[in-house]
Amino acid sequence: MSDARPIGVFDSGIGGLTVVKALRELLPGENIFYLGDTARVPYGGKSASTVERYSVEMTDMLVAEDVKTVVIACNSASAVALPKLEQTLAVPVIGVIKPGAQAALAATRNRHVGVIGTRATIKSGAYERELRALNPDVRISVRACPLLVPLIEEGWLDDELTNRVIARYLEPLTHDGIDTLVLGCTHYPLLADAIAPFLAGKVQLVDSARNCAKAVEQLLDQQSLRASRKGEGILQVALTDAPDTFLGVARRALQLEIGELQLREVLHPAKL
Amino acid sequence: MSDARPIGVFDSGIGGLTVVKALRELLPGENIFYLGDTARVPYGGKSASTVERYSVEMTDMLVAEDVKTVVIACNSASAVALPKLEQTLAVPVIGVIKPGAQAALAATRNRHVGVIGTRATIKSGAYERELRALNPDVRISVRACPLLVPLIEEGWLDDELTNRVIARYLEPLTHDGIDTLVLGCTHYPLLADAIAPFLAGKVQLVDSARNCAKAVEQLLDQQSLRASRKGEGILQVALTDAPDTFLGVARRALQLEIGELQLREVLHPAKL
Repeated sequence: MSDARPIGVFDSGIGGLTVVKALRELLPGENIFYLGDTARVPYGGKSASTVERYSVEMTDMLVAEDVKTVVIACNSASAVALPKLEQTLAVPVIGVIKPGAQAALAATRNRHVGVIGTRATIKSGAYERELRALNPDVRISVRACPLLVPLIEEGWLDDELTNRVIARYLEPLTHDGIDTLVLGCTHYPLLADAIAPFLAGKVQLVDSARNCAKAVEQLLDQQSLRASRKGEGILQVALTDAPDTFLGVARRALQLEIGELQLREVLHPAKL
Repeated sequence: MSDARPIGVFDSGIGGLTVVKALRELLPGENIFYLGDTARVPYGGKSASTVERYSVEMTDMLVAEDVKTVVIACNSASAVALPKLEQTLAVPVIGVIKPGAQAALAATRNRHVGVIGTRATIKSGAYERELRALNPDVRISVRACPLLVPLIEEGWLDDELTNRVIARYLEPLTHDGIDTLVLGCTHYPLLADAIAPFLAGKVQLVDSARNCAKAVEQLLDQQSLRASRKGEGILQVALTDAPDTFLGVARRALQLEIGELQLREVLHPAKL
């Protein structure tokens, strides 16, 4: 039995391609349909109800592509929209928060975990809820880092100014004594090399992209949804607005083979 | 004759409140209805066709408020949507680009003008077109500064890190020999004090917010649209998404009296 339908992946923009990269490495035979809501990016500063509405619209568009599962490769959307999507979607849905929380708890020795993300993700408290549900004794320090995504999109990945911003954001967390840091935004793995020196080998990084890909692999196995392992899967990328320079940054940094880009209009539910 | 209908002002977000501030100072008797598209902010990284579509939707919402004129307090929207809005709106419309270009040409002595703005504004070439139409001999140096808006929204207005980013963006322009710099984004006046030291008294700053307010005053006088000068006008603020921390930053920095905030859903034209 094999299922050649694509895995549907969505993100507010292009940062979710880090999850696609992890999926390609772990599940090379799978077809992937990626949808980035670049017409309304970023979600990270927006309210929970708006992010939920956008997430429903995006996943509806993925379901129309006959995907076999939906991956929310966006922490902000996972943080606020996952419960709603789990209720309403006819296919299984996986976010990035739970896999990240599980990996953080597996990694921590002193049970003190740090989480960085966008304002929407941090404000939602989703990581705290997930971590505490798994282990009520865990200590958690969080920090919203709204400048990291713009710095990444500017392409300043290996840059002294970016390092200074990272230092300012991380200092209170390392001072608090965390021994594990969750990169709670799918853009942030692009800064993993820049973040590592500030942790001085004392803090482990948990990359939500990679852990999300592992959760997808488990799900496909459990539900017998794997594609045939012969040949390499196809990656299709659709965006709701024409891409800007950041797509080039992501392509170079991730070395992803992306074919022709598709543009899709957001389909709004009928308003009366 | 007086006309008490409000002046309609729109921006992609809250940065356009710098234009409102300038309007309040220059035209204290006018009622103002401000609409910020915070559900889709920022426009600055998005494509011209998307920014034009959003601008049409926002101005339609303002016209429904019975405004007597529309002010596009957003450089990105002015840069790409003004021609379309001039054709389609039943009330006069004013953007920020032309007033800024006129002020820059009045200020420059060596006829070498610099312009900074978002990616969308700079990519549009709108300032170059406007400046060259007014004076074909002007030299122009431009630079997209996509990190300035996030830095302002983070509230890092008087901050050494922000100063370093400004220095990096401005160095090529001052090195080129500009003697006048247009702040081609309505957020940027909030950084005027931070930008000034890098110009070392040799470069004049042109604030598009203040010049836009002057253009509105002229228009109201020409078309006999002024409100009665008795009493102070009311400022109403509506946003398409719940405000985040930046509204507090703007309120403090601009010292604007904003009453109760209204939330408005974006009205999309019917899709078939």
